[in-house]
Amino acid sequence: MKIKFCYISIGFSVAVALSLFSCVGGGESTEQQSLSDVHPNLVLTPDGVDQIKTSLGNVPLFDETLQVVIKEVDAEIANGIEVPVPKDLAGGYTHERHKSNFFMMQKAGVLFQVTGDEKYAVYVRDMLLAYAELWPTIGKHPAERSYARGKIFWQCLNDANWLVYTSQGYDCIYDWLDESTREKLNKELFRPYAEYVSIENPQFFNRIHNHSTWGNAAVGMIGLVMGDEELITWALYGLDMNVPGDIIKDNDGGDIQLEGQKEAGFFAQIDHSFSPDGYYTEGPYYQRYAMYPFLIFAQSLASKKPELEILKYRDALLIKAVYALINQTNTQGEFFPINDSQKGMSLASRELVNAVSMAYYYGGNDPELLSIVKEQGRVPLNNAGVAAAKGVAEGKAQHFKYKSVQLTDGAEGDEGAIGILRANDLTLVMKYAKHGMGHGHFDRLGFLLYDETGEVIQDYGAARWVNIEHKDGGGYLKENHSWAKETVAHNTLVIDKDSHFDGKVKPADKTSGTPYYFLGGDSVQIVSAKELNAYDGITMQRTMAVVSMDELEYPLVIDLFSVQAPEGTRYDLPLYYLGELMSSNQKIQTNNNLIPMGEHDGYQHLWAEAQSDLQGDIFSMTWFNKKKFYTVTSAIDSGDEIIFTRIGANDPNFNLRRDPGLIHRRKGGNTLFASLYEIHGSYDYSTERPLNSFTSIRNLKVLHQSEAFVAVQFQLKTGENYQFAFSQLDKSESSNHEVETPNGALQWKGIYDLNKINK
Amino acid sequence: MKIKFCYISIGFSVAVALSLFSCVGGGESTEQQSLSDVHPNLVLTPDGVDQIKTSLGNVPLFDETLQVVIKEVDAEIANGIEVPVPKDLAGGYTHERHKSNFFMMQKAGVLFQVTGDEKYAVYVRDMLLAYAELWPTIGKHPAERSYARGKIFWQCLNDANWLVYTSQGYDCIYDWLDESTREKLNKELFRPYAEYVSIENPQFFNRIHNHSTWGNAAVGMIGLVMGDEELITWALYGLDMNVPGDIIKDNDGGDIQLEGQKEAGFFAQIDHSFSPDGYYTEGPYYQRYAMYPFLIFAQSLASKKPELEILKYRDALLIKAVYALINQTNTQGEFFPINDSQKGMSLASRELVNAVSMAYYYGGNDPELLSIVKEQGRVPLNNAGVAAAKGVAEGKAQHFKYKSVQLTDGAEGDEGAIGILRANDLTLVMKYAKHGMGHGHFDRLGFLLYDETGEVIQDYGAARWVNIEHKDGGGYLKENHSWAKETVAHNTLVIDKDSHFDGKVKPADKTSGTPYYFLGGDSVQIVSAKELNAYDGITMQRTMAVVSMDELEYPLVIDLFSVQAPEGTRYDLPLYYLGELMSSNQKIQTNNNLIPMGEHDGYQHLWAEAQSDLQGDIFSMTWFNKKKFYTVTSAIDSGDEIIFTRIGANDPNFNLRRDPGLIHRRKGGNTLFASLYEIHGSYDYSTERPLNSFTSIRNLKVLHQSEAFVAVQFQLKTGENYQFAFSQLDKSESSNHEVETPNGALQWKGIYDLNKINK
Repeated sequence: MKIKFCYISIGFSVAVALSLFSCVGGGESTEQQSLSDVHPNLVLTPDGVDQIKTSLGNVPLFDETLQVVIKEVDAEIANGIEVPVPKDLAGGYTHERHKSNFFMMQKAGVLFQVTGDEKYAVYVRDMLLAYAELWPTIGKHPAERSYARGKIFWQCLNDANWLVYTSQGYDCIYDWLDESTREKLNKELFRPYAEYVSIENPQFFNRIHNHSTWGNAAVGMIGLVMGDEELITWALYGLDMNVPGDIIKDNDGGDIQLEGQKEAGFFAQIDHSFSPDGYYTEGPYYQRYAMYPFLIFAQSLASKKPELEILKYRDALLIKAVYALINQTNTQGEFFPINDSQKGMSLASRELVNAVSMAYYYGGNDPELLSIVKEQGRVPLNNAGVAAAKGVAEGKAQHFKYKSVQLTDGAEGDEGAIGILRANDLTLVMKYAKHGMGHGHFDRLGFLLYDETGEVIQDYGAARWVNIEHKDGGGYLKENHSWAKETVAHNTLVIDKDSHFDGKVKPADKTSGTPYYFLGGDSVQIVSAKELNAYDGITMQRTMAVVSMDELEYPLVIDLFSVQAPEGTRYDLPLYYLGELMSSNQKIQTNNNLIPMGEHDGYQHLWAEAQSDLQGDIFSMTWFNKKKFYTVTSAIDSGDEIIFTRIGANDPNFNLRRDPGLIHRRKGGNTLFASLYEIHGSYDYSTERPLNSFTSIRNLKVLHQSEAFVAVQFQLKTGENYQFAFSQLDKSESSNHEVETPNGALQWKGIYDLNKINK
Repeated sequence: MKIKFCYISIGFSVAVALSLFSCVGGGESTEQQSLSDVHPNLVLTPDGVDQIKTSLGNVPLFDETLQVVIKEVDAEIANGIEVPVPKDLAGGYTHERHKSNFFMMQKAGVLFQVTGDEKYAVYVRDMLLAYAELWPTIGKHPAERSYARGKIFWQCLNDANWLVYTSQGYDCIYDWLDESTREKLNKELFRPYAEYVSIENPQFFNRIHNHSTWGNAAVGMIGLVMGDEELITWALYGLDMNVPGDIIKDNDGGDIQLEGQKEAGFFAQIDHSFSPDGYYTEGPYYQRYAMYPFLIFAQSLASKKPELEILKYRDALLIKAVYALINQTNTQGEFFPINDSQKGMSLASRELVNAVSMAYYYGGNDPELLSIVKEQGRVPLNNAGVAAAKGVAEGKAQHFKYKSVQLTDGAEGDEGAIGILRANDLTLVMKYAKHGMGHGHFDRLGFLLYDETGEVIQDYGAARWVNIEHKDGGGYLKENHSWAKETVAHNTLVIDKDSHFDGKVKPADKTSGTPYYFLGGDSVQIVSAKELNAYDGITMQRTMAVVSMDELEYPLVIDLFSVQAPEGTRYDLPLYYLGELMSSNQKIQTNNNLIPMGEHDGYQHLWAEAQSDLQGDIFSMTWFNKKKFYTVTSAIDSGDEIIFTRIGANDPNFNLRRDPGLIHRRKGGNTLFASLYEIHGSYDYSTERPLNSFTSIRNLKVLHQSEAFVAVQFQLKTGENYQFAFSQLDKSESSNHEVETPNGALQWKGIYDLNKINK
């Protein structure tokens, strides 16, 4: 069943929304009385509790998780209930205490259901009563930095987190509570709390943004627990309210209202936040964060309002989104740190622990998901968790096969994409998606490269230490804007020292990269995309190929960055390798007087440690990291320069990592940057034996570059010559192409051609 | 039995040495005929072979190692024999080929004995015959950089490596060979080879140095195989030859002849290289390298010349040396990188695989060694290896208990020491040993700190990528002298920007640090030492305490660096923390124009990224590394400055890591640098939750400093006050002391006093 969005576009008061509820989905109003009859009935149901009780002892992952949680909650119970008056920012005492409290209430609720031990119910009740005492006595949180200040926490977002988790704990003890306590909590704590994060803060609740997803889920879930249809309606369909006029941006610079936004609420979040492939425009770090409320509310709706068929909505999009997240991880299970992301966030997070078991249980019992559950080593203590633990216990887990995949962006899937090429442990990611709103980086056509050791060519990620109070309270640092978002901080082309879109979110948000060609799965894999908007009057196209070759240990990465621009344009193409420089074929002049490389667009944070006026045909540089060797080989034009950079200038609080980089600098018109990246060799610290520490590439030449075609030739040290040609305008498989090259005419059919030649 | 050294001090020709053999040990001459009668009889004996054959299948570690070796050797046999004409340096083809060859001959020999398969014997024989063909046709190796050029390799050292391993392989097939082949190999290959690395290169063979240990073992072992007593004598007692007058230094600047050196050969190596505690003056990295020839030759002598009782020599010193090595590792099993050392060398190395099993077998079957054998996951394929594998298979392994220990330096144990304090995973190392000859660093009173994540306060190690050809052929880089050895590269005091001993090895080698006090094992552990020679007229004493306190997660490290010097002395005390700076209590001024901090003594390689003119009582800085927090708190004097440094200036080949550091700068006379180091808290990237990320220290004050006493007071944020007082001249446990402090008179009895006070 496809739910039609039911947004009332004419102005009316929130109070009347309930009376209009019957327009939604049809017929649910008759169920109003029974909605709250059975508890628990969100992510844990009476059936689930039975399943758990009969399985205990035979489902190691569940059993172990349960023991861990019992130990943890028992310790907290012994510690006593603390509900302090809100005061601190993230990382501070009151913040961390309230955060711990909501996790504990959710867990204690589950333990009450699973063990039947009333002490857990008592604990949840008493803590809730303490919150019910506190709530009427406090105003807005004293910290004033948020665009939507919370009451318990410094921002509504955290208040919503509290409610999403606490609703689950409350659900578990709801039927156990006496009616007067229930009524007191409903009226004095939960309803006002839900109103606070919704109608009292529409700038928080009514956005298309992960903040609002939390808000919607929070209000919806407590609504489901209490049987409060008004709250459920707000949650599903948003508020018909205007945001106070002076609040137009959030703290990260994101717009409160998207241009042309007509909808809000949970369905609108699903509609707008995900592409048909399940890609979330802010990127995997925020998707992971947003997935928890998406999935936990969806599971709750699946239990309590099955008629909505929420998990089938948009072709089972929420399940697809879990797969999209898994596909956006490296070999260590860590998310690609595109856009604002803290590196290290991974499949081990509690959100993914919930998501993967959930996708297994509700999404068709895919045995490949079980290998991830196994790796996670724990399961959620609910219906999905016990099912996943059972699957693992029964030996059903199968290796998750990461495949090359292009994930489209945009609600309709027509606004760019990210391309992910995989060849065993080599993973190449190219980004030509939408900007990603307030958390987006100006990195069109940027790429990342991984191998089994982790990052090879890195994305800086966000300039932020999440929740670490030392660093500006754990929020985004000013270097996030001045460095991490800027184009020069990424592995993509900077023109005339300006960031893409002049570093402005609004124009960047209006367009996306243009997918051109994606070929995955074979010995030649290709991703190619164009960027037509980042710089006025300039078109860029990047084509990257991952080619498995008999002569090489690892697949070779071919990178052809083609640009059409006026003569005299200045190009800077950065490459953020990780590790220690071993050697270069060029003469390097190091500097003994370092000054920042510029004054804005990120250059103010770069030192030029050295530079090289390039001579000959190629620039080649080998580096070493984590016991392996890597080489970049780039074709050079006369006048090209390489700058050896180091991050860290203009960094008064030591907020930036001192990571190295290369900038390939060129001045010219239409041009092609052609490079090869090799992963090779190894080093063993206990035998001190290096293997294959030198590049296998002898030469690389551009044979042709025009708007329509690019072609390069490269030679291995073993003598083999290869040609790679690519058609940039015509991607018909049947077209015949011919270009002139110094080797004579080069002819091929179809979009690309890779050939061993005798030259 | 204690062997008396038998060095013939009057000039005589090498040729007559054999006739004088009977002066050694007494009576062996009658055994000459039988010496070569049984083979194998070095580290593998007929008894050992029997043991192995009856154990196979029941000793997993041995069985698995055997399978790995069979696979490896079979692949090499399939590959065919290659004995190329020597040409390359380390890392190059011919070097690596010959290196692989000697490993293969040793392994194939063992496989012949264990499996009885003749193909292994044939392989060793044919390869030896190829070497016998090659040997007479080649002169010195074409590369001319070594002070003792080899023939097969660029340096005699590697030629000796070859002979140590090859002797073992040869021993295994000796009895299987027909007599004419044996004779041919003995006469045309091995005897000339042994002469080349001994009498033809006395500057290599006759030193007290790890190079010579290899030379001695090489010549001795082939002597044992062939029953060539002359070679054995040279090996045990050195040559009575003068080194050609123009060779006085090796390539690392080490002296060929130690001052006053009267002895040479294997016994002299044992006498001079190790302290009575088994500490090797060059440090654990070179000890590990030297241990292989020490132990393998000792095992061979134990088999073939049991009357020497070599393993009991100097109170079983060689066994003690294995324990000393184990004690010089961090939680990851990696050696402390003091002096010239490449980080990452560890108990996993082949030398230690041999050493630990050997110490188990010959040293009394200590079950704690078996846990290390288990961790190594392999055993040597010899008598010791099968015994260790059996012990592990029988479940005898016990956890190796690392204890706090002081390892004295110097042949008599009276020339300094290193002090190692351990408290669970915290390991503090302080160095006040001898200089360490050519591989020593100017780092008297320097320290290193580890926790379970690895390095907390690092020693830079050597500026070298061993065997990695990109980096100057894998040898020492010039930055090893200009940076890594200099005092400012270490965590110890630099005075007037000069390195200790003016950076000169000769005077440094003449003296050592002075151990003052060492207390291990309790909740208060202390190491204290003096340095009286590094700077003329200046005495330094460092006292470090590791104190377990109820209030703190980890033991607290107290560091009191006391110095008596003229007024106007300029002090720089560096601290090489590893990680990202989180926050400081001081105002930091960063620099936007970096120039090297000096012109010599290592300062030329440092950038000053920032500085702080210190205000108030303390400097406090918290950093973050590998998911943990660390804080240094230092008491400050008026006028003190902190400089935030970064390594990397004047580094044309990018040979140095861009690691951060702090320099505490002070100008004055007699003074005390007092600091506290805390390890605290944690961060989890998947929950993004920091714990205990702030220091627990509120204040630190110097209460007293004089030549005789130092006393400090520190306060925790929880309010507790502690006083620590230490007597620097009188270490009697019964003396009563009293000093004046701002808090009044402080009295205590004995060398130190740590007390909680009410101030």
